[in-house]
Parts: sequence; structure tokens; C-alpha cells
Amino acid sequence: MNMRDIIIAKRDKQCLSDEQIRFFVKGVTDGTIPDYQTSALLMAIVLNGMDDREMTTLTLEMAASGNQMTFPYLEGIPVDKHSTGGVGDKITPILLPLIATFGVETVKLSGRGLGFTGGTVDKFESIEGFNVEVDTKDFHMYVIKTGMVISGQTPDLAPADKILYALRDVTGTVDSIPLIASSIMSKKIAGGASAIALDVTCGSGAFMKDYDSAKKLADAMIRIGKLAGRKTVAVITDMDQPLGRFCGNILEMQEVYNTVTGKGEEDVIEVVTELAFQLIKLAEKTAGMSDEVLRQEIRARLSDGTCYEKYKALIQSQGGKWIDGAGPVYVDKPFDCMHVNSPDAGYVQEVRADLIGQASVLLGAGRLAKTDSIDYGAGIGFFVKVGDRVARGDSLCALYHGEKADIPEDRLFDAMDLILQAYKVGPEKPEKKPAILGVIT
Amino acid sequence: MNMRDIIIAKRDKQCLSDEQIRFFVKGVTDGTIPDYQTSALLMAIVLNGMDDREMTTLTLEMAASGNQMTFPYLEGIPVDKHSTGGVGDKITPILLPLIATFGVETVKLSGRGLGFTGGTVDKFESIEGFNVEVDTKDFHMYVIKTGMVISGQTPDLAPADKILYALRDVTGTVDSIPLIASSIMSKKIAGGASAIALDVTCGSGAFMKDYDSAKKLADAMIRIGKLAGRKTVAVITDMDQPLGRFCGNILEMQEVYNTVTGKGEEDVIEVVTELAFQLIKLAEKTAGMSDEVLRQEIRARLSDGTCYEKYKALIQSQGGKWIDGAGPVYVDKPFDCMHVNSPDAGYVQEVRADLIGQASVLLGAGRLAKTDSIDYGAGIGFFVKVGDRVARGDSLCALYHGEKADIPEDRLFDAMDLILQAYKVGPEKPEKKPAILGVIT
Repeated sequence: MNMRDIIIAKRDKQCLSDEQIRFFVKGVTDGTIPDYQTSALLMAIVLNGMDDREMTTLTLEMAASGNQMTFPYLEGIPVDKHSTGGVGDKITPILLPLIATFGVETVKLSGRGLGFTGGTVDKFESIEGFNVEVDTKDFHMYVIKTGMVISGQTPDLAPADKILYALRDVTGTVDSIPLIASSIMSKKIAGGASAIALDVTCGSGAFMKDYDSAKKLADAMIRIGKLAGRKTVAVITDMDQPLGRFCGNILEMQEVYNTVTGKGEEDVIEVVTELAFQLIKLAEKTAGMSDEVLRQEIRARLSDGTCYEKYKALIQSQGGKWIDGAGPVYVDKPFDCMHVNSPDAGYVQEVRADLIGQASVLLGAGRLAKTDSIDYGAGIGFFVKVGDRVARGDSLCALYHGEKADIPEDRLFDAMDLILQAYKVGPEKPEKKPAILGVIT
Repeated sequence: MNMRDIIIAKRDKQCLSDEQIRFFVKGVTDGTIPDYQTSALLMAIVLNGMDDREMTTLTLEMAASGNQMTFPYLEGIPVDKHSTGGVGDKITPILLPLIATFGVETVKLSGRGLGFTGGTVDKFESIEGFNVEVDTKDFHMYVIKTGMVISGQTPDLAPADKILYALRDVTGTVDSIPLIASSIMSKKIAGGASAIALDVTCGSGAFMKDYDSAKKLADAMIRIGKLAGRKTVAVITDMDQPLGRFCGNILEMQEVYNTVTGKGEEDVIEVVTELAFQLIKLAEKTAGMSDEVLRQEIRARLSDGTCYEKYKALIQSQGGKWIDGAGPVYVDKPFDCMHVNSPDAGYVQEVRADLIGQASVLLGAGRLAKTDSIDYGAGIGFFVKVGDRVARGDSLCALYHGEKADIPEDRLFDAMDLILQAYKVGPEKPEKKPAILGVIT
């Protein structure tokens, strides 16, 4: 077997055999296949696709290319959740404690943010003392103690995927359902989850710009999950406008605290409830409740203190400072430095999440390069969102930077420009889009 | 401008701008674009194609990536000929002296053979003393003296093409009309030809297996030639069975000598006549002859000694030993070591040129790797070809090796096996295929 024949087979629209995919992933992992052959095959896959069997083999081979986690001490079904990314997406910190109240145990390996998509690890790091660089012993200890863990350490987890991902980024081979789906699923499978809930975001601020492509990606991941013997469900959620009331690390964690203390935004609650509902069912922890009762119970636990207690346990177990009645202590304090006002009167027609995300990065809340540092206090708060009425001169949103940080004035004005582009105000009241666009099981 | 955007544009079926192609070729030449990006773009071109303007720009940019030859001392139109390769293809050594008798000057940069396709340089090197490693001064001196030159030295000629070609070979991106056409034409244009005749071979022993794909390649090269301001013509020739009576280096040069002394095979004469006819017209050296008269005159010069004298001049000018009445002196002597006999009676239906070529390489006449050495005396002589009648036990062909060389017995038997596969004998007399399948101007 040689790599050139494998490239030619895919170039000529043939399906690759399991042996060919195994040869490829092994060669990528041990470095015997040169990058120029790998990138030629990646482009052939982008243009000629892969069928379900090929995608699943690719996923399992990438998962098997490094360490595969197991949790022999768990009695239940370990679950994981993955979001394809968005702006203001603070679901994970709410979802984990919420389902933990039902006895669902999660094993969550999270990433740092890059580009305008925020990273869960960055959000938790905005809490004083919270340790995300957990070693293997700690990782398992946290799971045993609280049934939850947030970890930014993913040493030797699906190394083949890491190599391919870096190469895809510079060779224009990112946009491919089989490659995206197998990349995500390989990490979930190597991470040891038996049940997986996928939050496939869709819209201007998401990787998938429209419902059809989001559904295609969701379908592909579900087919892989099933063929790989993992219970998998996908929730397609709206990411045309940012989720919730804030984006930025501390600002979002404050919104998380509001949500677990019963003062959450409806769109955030909707998404977190649906994902919780699906995961509780997959983990078989419904305790005999009907679907309707279960959904009510999930919502109730956000405001009755049950989720709050679990959230506190999560923060404290990983070393985060906590003050009862006030929540986590943050490393900085967001400072409201400027409001952007509406130049027109009318109804907000759209708040383009991608432009908001870019503005947020300019303010310091995100990274453009992996080595950039973050201003944890930076971000944006939205006074109005799609469907809200504004008068001329009303504040659309507030820009923040951290008290400890500083921001050059020209960046502030560039961010303001982006926000004025992001907000569209018109005379007609737009129809309200639901937060959940579809559930695929 | 960056390479990733260029890759993405081609991946998304867009046409690349002249600036984008220039950026790409420049980056390939100076090494600033890494191979993994180049191979991703090559695969996107293979699968999504290029239009005429893109192909022409790619060709001209590759031609301009190194030294571009000029012949300021020539009064006429310098011509070049290119064959897409075949088995037993000894056209160049006959064509050059033949058109030189009409005052057509050729500037021929030739290659060595690789795989089962023989190389013109190897054939001339089988002549004692013949120097193909000519430096620039010699190169021009030979052209001035005889109007002909055979050179294997192509330093710094279209270096971008050399880099791309090496990468295409290992990344499954060889099969692409735009890439093949621009590769060939870039070298012809950098070589300084103002008029170009293309021998596009077609059949089992050629790169293009059927007429349609050969025609597509021919069309593409002609369109490039025209857009680049070069007179270009293509002759599509049959390469389903080997050309002429012999393949192998000395064996073919002996056949060349036979042809220029009036004892050539009809298929060889047909092809060389058509190419000569086209080139004499392109070079405007018809001296007022009608097409019919010109064709007769070309054939006549193969047997009346005119071409013979020019052939002798070509061999001698580059140092080759020559004995009047016997022709060139070779570095070795082909030794007829085995005959392969027909297991059946009937008519020869096919003589698969690819399998004959592979057998010839096994005998030592060609190279599998660039560093392999050659047995100049090795090769195959065909007693019968398609349409000939054989009795059971009749010799189909003779296998040769050089007297100075030796050949392991198992290789000889492997070659015999290939030849028995190559020859198909059946009861019906097959229709005779013409040597010239089409002429495209």
C-alpha cells in the first residue's frame, strides 16, 4: 500500500478501504507520510467527499491514534457535549452542573478560544484560582468528587486530528463535512464519552451559515456516532445573533451565575434546557419522568438553588474562589467604557454575531493568534437584540474592557464601527426566530 | 495576497486571476510556498480545472520562472517538436535532419527516458562519442553549424515546472489536462521555439489512452500556443502498438538509419512525414510547393540521400562516430538472445505497447528510477505486428540485450511473460488502424 495510490483513489471518486484509511492515519501520526501528500488527499476529500463508512473509520482511527480515556469507576453512562462554536455561547458552564443534579456525569475536555469563537477554558480561567491545567490524577479525582470536570489539557488525545487540523487550516481544506465531523467525533470518542450531545450552531456567527449545512453536519456526526456505538443527539441552535445578553469571558461567567440563580435570558435557558433534556435521556437518568415533566424539572432546577449548588461545587472543586451570595471571584472587573447608540429609530432587524465577535476580539476578549493574551474583563453587553424597539440615540450595546487592562482608542473606534455594521434597524418588527432550530436523534 | 485564499478560490471552482497565478509560480520557484499548500492547489486544479486564460498564464509564468532562450542569429522561424511519449518512438532523430533539408531550424531540448517511454537523449547517447551534455556556447554553435541540436542539458529552464512536476508525481496530481498542457508548453516556450509541432500519442502505450482525451490535451496545448503567440499544430498518432519495427536505444537508432536510407517502416514514415509537413509549413519553408508536392518531396528526401547527409551532419557535429556506408558507430551491439513464439495461429489482433514497454525496461533498455543505468543494446524487435498472420510456433518477436551486458534469466522470463500478454492472436483479420489519427491546427 502506498499513499499515492490512496490519493489517486479518492481523486477518482472511489471509496477508501478501511485498510487505506488506517494506513493514512497511522502515517500521519508517525510522520512517515509527508505533508504534501496529506494535503493532496485532504483536498480530494473536500471535493469528492466520503461515505458514512469512510467517515466512521477515519473517526475511529484518529481516536485510536493516541490515548483513549476510560472511566472504570463510573457506574452510569459518561456523557460529553460539544458545540461547534458561537458568540456568547456560555452553555457548558450551566449545562454541566444542571445535568449533574440529575446524576449525569460529564467528562468535558474543552478548548481555548481562537478567532471570534470564545473558548470554555478561557471563561473558567477568568475565575480567580480556577485550575484548568489538570493532570490525569486530578482529572479523575474531580470526576469522582463532583461528576464534572473542566480541562484544557488534552495531551496525546487524537494526535492525528491535531496534525490534520493544523494542515487543513493553511491548505484551504477546512470546509468539508466528513473532515469536520470526523475531527469533532474523534475527540469525543477518544475522550471516553458513551453518549454525546452536539450543539450545532447555525448562522452568521457560526461555522455553518445556514440550516441546511448545519443539518448536514449534524446528520454526519450522528451517523458516525451510531456506527461507532455511541448514543448521539444533535441540537441545531441559532447563532445569527449572539446568545444571551453578554459576550466576553467574565461578562459571560456573570451571566452564567445569573442563569443558575434563576435570572437567565430566555434564549440561553431554552438551549441549555434542550441539551440537558437530551443528555439526561441518553444517560438514562429521567427517573421515570415524562418528557414534559422532565423539561419543567430542568427549568425549575435553574431557579430553585439545585443547579446553583452544583455550580458552586464545580467551581470550588477545581480551586475557584467563591463568595456565597455573590458567586465566583474573577481575576478582573469589566469596565463599561463606551455605549454605541442607534443612528436610526425602529426595530432591531439583525445583530450579526460574526461582526459582534470580531468587535469583541478587538476589545481584547479573544485571540487572533494562539499566543495572544486575553483581557478577561473585555466584551460586549447587548441592551437590545433582534425584535426590540429602539429610538434614535438609544444605546444598542455597551463596550467593556477590564479594569486592569487598557485599550488603544483606535481599536475602540474600530470595534464601534463593526457594531454599527452588525446592528440593522428597520421599520418593520421582524419575526422572532426560535433559539432551537431542530433536534436530530 | 496569500496562498490559502488562492487554494480556496480554486477549491470553490473560481478562476484564478493572473496575479494569483503569478504569486503561486513565483512562490513555488523561490520556495516561499510550502509543498503542502502547492499540492493542495494542484489537487484542486486536477478536480476543478482551469480555463484557457488560466492555463496560458500558468504556462507563461512557468516559462518565465527561469532562463528563456533566444536565437538572435537565426533568420527563419525556430521550430520545436514534442512527443507525449511512446514505445518505439524514434521520430525526432529522423524529423530533425529531414526538415533541415528544407532549411527549417530546430532547437530541441530532449529528455532522458523514465518508465517505459524511451528518451531521445538516451538514444543519441548510444552512439559512440555523441555529446548530449552540451553547454550554452556549444548549443548555439551546433544550431549555427547545422540548424539542429540535441541537448539533454536543460539547466534553469522552467524551474517552476520541474518543482511542480516532481510534486505531482508523488501526490496523484499528474492526470490533468491543464497541468500537462502547461507543463509541456512552458518548456517549449522557454526553449525559444516560435513554431511548435506536438505529437500527441494515443493508446495503450501513451499517456492518453483514448482519442478523446488525446484530442482534449492537443486542443488545450494549441489554445495555449495561440494565446501565447506561438504557431502550434498537433498531430494525434496511434500508440496502441509500438511504432516501427524495434524498441530499445541502439535498435531504434539502427531503424532511424534504415529510415533515412530509404528502408523505413511505413508507420514511422507516415508519422515523420506528417510532422515534417506541418513544421515546414509553420516555418514558411514550402518554397511555393503545393501540399501534395510537398508531401511527395518529404518522402523522396528520405530515400534520395538528402536526409541521410543531414543526419550524418547532425551526428558528426555533436561528436558522434560515423562510418560512411554503415552509419553511426554504437557503444554496444544488440545480441538476439531469445525469440518469443506464438502459442496460437491466426491474425495478430493487438500488440499492447505498454506491456512491450515494460518488457523492454525489464531487458535493460529503460529506467524505473532516474538513477538506473541503461543497457543500450537491449530491446525488442517485432517480427509481426497488428494485422499480420502467424502460424502456431512462429516467432512474434526477438529479445535483445547488449553484448557487453548480461541479464538474469528470471528477468528474461518475466519479459517473455509480458510479451505473451501483449500479443493477442485471433481468427479474424483486424481492421488496420492508421498511424495518424488526426491533425489539429
